[in-house]
Amino acid sequence: MNATQQQIAWITQQVMQELAAQGSSRSETLDAPSAPLQVQVGISNRHIHLAREDMDILFGYGATLTRMKAVKQPGQFASEECVTLRGPKGEIKNVRVLGPLRPTTQVEISVADSFVLGVKAPVRMSGDLQDSPGIEIVGPKGSVKKASGTIVAWRHIHISPEDAERHALRDGMEVSIQAQGQRAGIMQHVVVRATQASVLELHVDVEEANAYGLRNGDLVNIITEQPPWLMFPLRRDCARWSS
Amino acid sequence: MNATQQQIAWITQQVMQELAAQGSSRSETLDAPSAPLQVQVGISNRHIHLAREDMDILFGYGATLTRMKAVKQPGQFASEECVTLRGPKGEIKNVRVLGPLRPTTQVEISVADSFVLGVKAPVRMSGDLQDSPGIEIVGPKGSVKKASGTIVAWRHIHISPEDAERHALRDGMEVSIQAQGQRAGIMQHVVVRATQASVLELHVDVEEANAYGLRNGDLVNIITEQPPWLMFPLRRDCARWSS
Repeated sequence: MNATQQQIAWITQQVMQELAAQGSSRSETLDAPSAPLQVQVGISNRHIHLAREDMDILFGYGATLTRMKAVKQPGQFASEECVTLRGPKGEIKNVRVLGPLRPTTQVEISVADSFVLGVKAPVRMSGDLQDSPGIEIVGPKGSVKKASGTIVAWRHIHISPEDAERHALRDGMEVSIQAQGQRAGIMQHVVVRATQASVLELHVDVEEANAYGLRNGDLVNIITEQPPWLMFPLRRDCARWSS
Repeated sequence: MNATQQQIAWITQQVMQELAAQGSSRSETLDAPSAPLQVQVGISNRHIHLAREDMDILFGYGATLTRMKAVKQPGQFASEECVTLRGPKGEIKNVRVLGPLRPTTQVEISVADSFVLGVKAPVRMSGDLQDSPGIEIVGPKGSVKKASGTIVAWRHIHISPEDAERHALRDGMEVSIQAQGQRAGIMQHVVVRATQASVLELHVDVEEANAYGLRNGDLVNIITEQPPWLMFPLRRDCARWSS
């Protein structure tokens, strides 16, 4: 051990002794949950949400989506319907429509897809479509050129307001995720979306999943956006700092 | 780490910062470089390295690679030649051959590619091909079924032994990379490859680049693989702990 390490060892010893001497007072100052919050991974492939008027054009007036498979978030589903995306540089077929219909059509692609299509899609939260690029959408009954609505989804955690409250998380705050394994990494700027009827789930796209070695259903730990040396257990007042 | 250890870590960090701020005494105990080591990002798309015998089968006996573009590592180049990879589930065309020829044929694909092909390629360092799956390679003059050699490249940093020495890095050790921006993250388990005639460069694949928001030529900071609460500036003896 060199001088610096000896200093650390000595300081640590002093602190340990001080803490040990405090006895019961420790439980008063740290009311943290004992384990970090774990969240299940949900991987999103490219997909599209359609508004009624675009559904009419692409699949015929009054057409409805056919439920193929429920996804984890309540009420949402993958439909049988698919479209083709056509950009200035190329097209991508078999892009699945996710239901139910929404007020605004939104296309969610990967960064790699954006190069294939030739569309500079920004990394955005769902619904934040201002100044996002448009794209041509081709369906079996017609096609539509959208002026905007193409994004790369910003990674996020769905959580119910109750679960958020319990774990000192708030809608809109950012946390980090620790992925383990050969491609371990700390994924930063993961936005918390605390909304009614949400089920706890981390949404990442295919490239994020593959780069961090994640599979559907994997469990990962949420850590707060503190500097690493300030990484206390999750506490209400700590969480507030990180907004 | 439990709460007590985290408190110790935090207090230790505070004390260390105080020590570091004490002026001249710092240079005696901390001989760290003033700035973190930065490395340029090089993004690898899927590619193949060919052995002489496979080059003969795929492109004709005695065929040679045609240099198309030099890559950053001295002597290496992208060739005009491409092959098709054919797996049990699908095939990928236009996979570029990287030159020069090597003793052993090696296929480097992404995780997404491995699903397309139906080949369970492990994440491995170049040359570590034991028990890796095989694949069929199709060229203009013939095709060959390899029994092994298909991998997903383990992310790594090329560095000369001199640069490594200067920055307290050693061949085979792992470091982490801090990526900034909307998709900021700490990429862990990045292997240092300190070999002669290497140029400092971080090699990641397309999915890693897109997930961490990296572009070719971006500069990122190298940080050592210390636990976060021991993340001091790079020092020779600190670096040695992380092997």
